[in-house]
Amino acid sequence: MYDVETVRRDFPILSRQVNGKPLVYLDNGASAQKPQVVIDAVTRGYAEEYANVHRGLHYLSNLATDKYEAVRGIVARFLNAASEDEIVFNTGTTMGINIVAYAWAMPRMQAGDEIVLSVMEHHANIVPWHFLRERQGVVLKWVDCDSTGALDPQAVIDAIGPKTRLVAITQLSNVLGTRVDVKTICAAAREKGVPVLVDGSQGAVHMPVDVQDIGCDFYAITGHKLYGPSGSGAIYVKRERMDEMRPFLGGGDMIREVTKDAVSYNDPPMKFEAGTPGIVQQIGLGVALNYLMDLGMDNVAAHEERLRDYARARLDGLNWLNVQGNTPDKAAIFSFTMQGAAHAHDISTILDKKGVAVRAGHHCAGPLMEFFGVSATCRASFGLYNTEAEVDALVDALELAQELFG
Amino acid sequence: MYDVETVRRDFPILSRQVNGKPLVYLDNGASAQKPQVVIDAVTRGYAEEYANVHRGLHYLSNLATDKYEAVRGIVARFLNAASEDEIVFNTGTTMGINIVAYAWAMPRMQAGDEIVLSVMEHHANIVPWHFLRERQGVVLKWVDCDSTGALDPQAVIDAIGPKTRLVAITQLSNVLGTRVDVKTICAAAREKGVPVLVDGSQGAVHMPVDVQDIGCDFYAITGHKLYGPSGSGAIYVKRERMDEMRPFLGGGDMIREVTKDAVSYNDPPMKFEAGTPGIVQQIGLGVALNYLMDLGMDNVAAHEERLRDYARARLDGLNWLNVQGNTPDKAAIFSFTMQGAAHAHDISTILDKKGVAVRAGHHCAGPLMEFFGVSATCRASFGLYNTEAEVDALVDALELAQELFG
Repeated sequence: MYDVETVRRDFPILSRQVNGKPLVYLDNGASAQKPQVVIDAVTRGYAEEYANVHRGLHYLSNLATDKYEAVRGIVARFLNAASEDEIVFNTGTTMGINIVAYAWAMPRMQAGDEIVLSVMEHHANIVPWHFLRERQGVVLKWVDCDSTGALDPQAVIDAIGPKTRLVAITQLSNVLGTRVDVKTICAAAREKGVPVLVDGSQGAVHMPVDVQDIGCDFYAITGHKLYGPSGSGAIYVKRERMDEMRPFLGGGDMIREVTKDAVSYNDPPMKFEAGTPGIVQQIGLGVALNYLMDLGMDNVAAHEERLRDYARARLDGLNWLNVQGNTPDKAAIFSFTMQGAAHAHDISTILDKKGVAVRAGHHCAGPLMEFFGVSATCRASFGLYNTEAEVDALVDALELAQELFG
Repeated sequence: MYDVETVRRDFPILSRQVNGKPLVYLDNGASAQKPQVVIDAVTRGYAEEYANVHRGLHYLSNLATDKYEAVRGIVARFLNAASEDEIVFNTGTTMGINIVAYAWAMPRMQAGDEIVLSVMEHHANIVPWHFLRERQGVVLKWVDCDSTGALDPQAVIDAIGPKTRLVAITQLSNVLGTRVDVKTICAAAREKGVPVLVDGSQGAVHMPVDVQDIGCDFYAITGHKLYGPSGSGAIYVKRERMDEMRPFLGGGDMIREVTKDAVSYNDPPMKFEAGTPGIVQQIGLGVALNYLMDLGMDNVAAHEERLRDYARARLDGLNWLNVQGNTPDKAAIFSFTMQGAAHAHDISTILDKKGVAVRAGHHCAGPLMEFFGVSATCRASFGLYNTEAEVDALVDALELAQELFG
């Protein structure tokens, strides 16, 4: 049985106050808080077990290397990758998608080649492709969602044409909470010989993920959203795609031999990991993923779905609130604007005075903002430690904002 | 007065044992240990003050943003940059040099253009240029050191020809400890209109740095070698060069506006910082640099020079030891091999049994290994907390290795 009060006690920051009120942290879509086991792993990593990895033979270096490399297997297990050699460490989804753009797409795409994207993509899954458009004449083909925020997988599949070289698509909208049926998209794309990159930055946080079942070629995750340290992350790259990638970042560790005249490269995944990595934060990521697997991602998802249903019912009761995105199976992420003049930033400022942390802005999703005809929204994004009482606190604070601005 | 025993008490790991012996940590060239103030800043960052930066308006996000952005000024002060807007945050020197390679060099260099390098460069300052050689036909022009490890700045200046587009050079050899007169090189290069990238990965650790006095265009540092968290770092980019750079990593924060058809970019330095950064580790880097400035880099340098002189005298007494690099003003970094058959890895393993942590291998410096005709060396690299007693422990352990293998 998932006991959210027990879970909350694992997160020290949740007992603090802000502006004299108990913290109600609903900004998980931007970044999640860290359980004590993760913080302890980081502290221990520095205070007792620190050294650089891979290149040493002394005790601390071996210890740090063993702990660091063990995380590759943990990530593989978390995503159900076929092999830990399909896991490339990095600093998060932005870096993961840039690796795919520079190491895989850039050398193989030419003017007129197409990349299919949804209108719900995060800038991390847009700007690297805009680079290819600006620099190489690659064409971006956009697929819209409908007014409820639903994305028809068939619309994505229909957008795949003879010049399509990649589908780059989110599994879960960071703004609307919409879930995308990436498995269906991957199956159809595979038949057409088109690889699929799934942005799992949000998806992996809110549901169990099985990259083999999804059938994607790339699946990017971000540690700091997965209750792990900032600057941690990884990307799953299917072995066949890995073999097609050229090196991206150059430096130590990713090489086999360097002379004045030549360079040869290490085997994947090390080939794509240059220089001293984020040793301690990756070790912390492993602890965070083990924490999630111990809780059980099914249990996390079920808890958050209860929260979603409760929040949806409460927010539906506010007839001056516009919620963007209301698909039945969405994640517990609510983007909203207020009827009347109140700007999202003003609303979030009022909420903050009541201790309720939400985000206001474009949420790094310019095309989606344009689609909904808004310049900014507020977003309340729930995580595994949030409660129905916190939904009530959000609604109370919104009602205060409505009184002030409505 | 610099009291090394007081300094040592700031570093919790130094009181631990390895293999039943007190830790003698002489692997600072690979990565340095962290003072308690840095560890505390990281712990507090996660346990009490964590949120994503830049995009929020709530209390924790503002708090984290203020602390994070304050580090830009600290780095600028540490390097004496003219403006904190010349500081680009990243994950360390490898990323810093790759940014220069991809954002500045790649779009402006053509086949036949030349980059001047020294034979002492670290792979981080070689492999990104090999990419340009492999992919664009750029020519690498190498300048050798002499048999003592000294690098004549005039030899570097003489290597600059009409097709030279960049000089990429270390300030301090990570293998030999050789200091390079980068100021003289920069002055001559500037007269010839050739920008200079200085790899400050080691230099900034062992002496005061003033990028305006040096006159370089790029100066890369690595947080984890500067007693800061892993995954932290920055690069100084002179404003004129910054204006010549195109975006490198694409994602959130580095944009101004993103639509389906177009993208516009943020002002520098944000233009070069995509996605959620290493928030907590950068905050920790600021604490580490303040710690160094409080100690005084002049005092750190003077302490390490005393250590260097003592270590040199002791190692000179071992007539079966070959030390590579013996310039008078070198830093306290000693690369060595043993006459006879003992492999560097075997020596380091024996040293480790005595608690002495050194590195064995090519030290990410393939061309330099080739120059000295060795495949691997041991390296003892000293830091601000090391002592003469630890030099003695190193010598004792080396004598044991000589007994076993000599």
